[in-house]
Amino acid sequence: MSKYWTPLASSLEPYVPGEQPKDKTYIKLNTNENPYPPSPKALEAMKEAANADLRLYPDPTCEELVQAAANYYGLSPKQTFAGNGSDELLAFAFAAFFDPARPVLFPDITYSFYKVYAKLCGITPKLIPLDEQFQVPIDQFAGDHGGMILPNPNAPTAILIPLDQVRKLLEANPDRVVIIDEAYIDFGGESAVKLVPEYPNLLVIQTLSKSRSLAGLRVGLAFGSEELIDGLNRIKNSFNSYTMDRLALRGAVAALQDEAYFQETTAKVVATRDGIIASLKELGFIVTDSKANFLLISHPSYSAADLFKQLREQGILVRYFNSPRIDNYLRVTVGTDEEMAQFLKVLKRLIGA
Amino acid sequence: MSKYWTPLASSLEPYVPGEQPKDKTYIKLNTNENPYPPSPKALEAMKEAANADLRLYPDPTCEELVQAAANYYGLSPKQTFAGNGSDELLAFAFAAFFDPARPVLFPDITYSFYKVYAKLCGITPKLIPLDEQFQVPIDQFAGDHGGMILPNPNAPTAILIPLDQVRKLLEANPDRVVIIDEAYIDFGGESAVKLVPEYPNLLVIQTLSKSRSLAGLRVGLAFGSEELIDGLNRIKNSFNSYTMDRLALRGAVAALQDEAYFQETTAKVVATRDGIIASLKELGFIVTDSKANFLLISHPSYSAADLFKQLREQGILVRYFNSPRIDNYLRVTVGTDEEMAQFLKVLKRLIGA
Repeated sequence: MSKYWTPLASSLEPYVPGEQPKDKTYIKLNTNENPYPPSPKALEAMKEAANADLRLYPDPTCEELVQAAANYYGLSPKQTFAGNGSDELLAFAFAAFFDPARPVLFPDITYSFYKVYAKLCGITPKLIPLDEQFQVPIDQFAGDHGGMILPNPNAPTAILIPLDQVRKLLEANPDRVVIIDEAYIDFGGESAVKLVPEYPNLLVIQTLSKSRSLAGLRVGLAFGSEELIDGLNRIKNSFNSYTMDRLALRGAVAALQDEAYFQETTAKVVATRDGIIASLKELGFIVTDSKANFLLISHPSYSAADLFKQLREQGILVRYFNSPRIDNYLRVTVGTDEEMAQFLKVLKRLIGA
Repeated sequence: MSKYWTPLASSLEPYVPGEQPKDKTYIKLNTNENPYPPSPKALEAMKEAANADLRLYPDPTCEELVQAAANYYGLSPKQTFAGNGSDELLAFAFAAFFDPARPVLFPDITYSFYKVYAKLCGITPKLIPLDEQFQVPIDQFAGDHGGMILPNPNAPTAILIPLDQVRKLLEANPDRVVIIDEAYIDFGGESAVKLVPEYPNLLVIQTLSKSRSLAGLRVGLAFGSEELIDGLNRIKNSFNSYTMDRLALRGAVAALQDEAYFQETTAKVVATRDGIIASLKELGFIVTDSKANFLLISHPSYSAADLFKQLREQGILVRYFNSPRIDNYLRVTVGTDEEMAQFLKVLKRLIGA
């Protein structure tokens, strides 16, 4: 605390990102990064963009990237928005659409940054409990509220909400904004972007961090009706006119245009994931039905907190959340086949299998 | 307006950045960019960083850059903060330090984004009029207020506040945060960073956009007491854990370390500026005493609005603000000697000199 802080600054409970220890080299399965490098074409585009033009401001409207993203999904640029990582877009969206006068709904088990944004924007969250199988109880996302946000697939459960259920949410709440956070949609889910032309209250948020292997570049995208995109732009242009640098803009465009590489790498992650799920189940682990690039796993006979520590000592980083209902689970990012073989080998040893 | 917008989103009056027309090639003297390219070493560092590691999140603490910036000024990393352009840092600082319960002070003629941040944070600004010579009346930055922000040199006046005057501000307002926005300090001003160890209420904000020729990379720095830097981190980590991408982090470090290039290019801008000031005065222009990389000029016999339009037609972009007290002035960025010679040539023709 400091006498110089505003009441807001004093009240915040900032997010804590996954650790990035530098003491030794780890197999890093803790922040849901893609094990494959970005598209070579994207890397080439960024190298080319590292030129004298960096003395000039970037395009504040991100026109080229917005157009590329709009083209990718068959939408208009006016239905498309780009920013400095999907975290920034989420912060803008909370400020733009979630009126502090009403509670905002999200699952009790979900991306833990949502409650941080809520605090930043003075919003009271209303947590809707997932059922015993960690499924989202769609019918309970209703009533007198100020909007809602759901990741799809959910994190850290990795479970997908089918598109007909998303449609139900949109139709049950026509006067409130429904944000679908699709950070992990490309690993087996069906995107709600196709519903954008039908529902003015739908905002879909995506990122190039996971399926495009560009966590280090900070690129997020949003898709929604023109009035929602206008709302995001109002917040953005009251915060920072130039949120995306020239290198990120160029790299993102090139990545979106390299469809073959995207299909190849996401398919590899999915294949590895489905293989490791089978192996983990054989070892007695409970594994949710992941449609993401990570797994949520638990063992009836071994403490997740202990396994987390032991894995770390063995050079393998996974994520452990000391939170209600998931405090005996580990979240494990899907790495390469080699990384997952090593993970399994160490895990077997730890549980004496 | 949209029924989906929050009262906040509806109430905002977003900032409008300088135009970036694409209809033809202009001599671009409208957004205070540096006419010289970034350090070749910075470009090289960014090319090298465009590699497979981009699949990984960047360091959320920006440790390497924070350390480099701290070293540059002989401060501790705990007194140093880095972010996605100084605009982002300003937004964080308004939220962290300016309590909406009290007015925040800034000059009536200043960077027009300040009032936009104030609106975003629910703060009422109290504008302190500059005197007739556009000097800052230091004694009037006092009383019952919630803090203050002053650019030094001021924009768009280009006039410097001497460091002893900054010291007066800090001593007169020990219980409130004083932000000195030093976007243009490297073109002849004396930085207040050296006062950081003495004054816990001082926050200095700088940018690599101007004197480091990296407007396209989006890098801002802040220097202040540990409690102020903690305050910025609280807001940042409630907004976006990873505000700076890997390329910007590497490029910024390399730019800060290339002191020879920095000295050479800023000296060239200063020499060009001082030459063009003399020429403009010969043409009868009123020119403020610029210690920045831009000029504020006015002619007793010619309308600034007209000159702005005519210059544009002749392929020269400058900035015109249709704002009280400066609506007969033009803000002109200092370009290369060749660009300024062309600017002068066209200007002479326009005023029949």
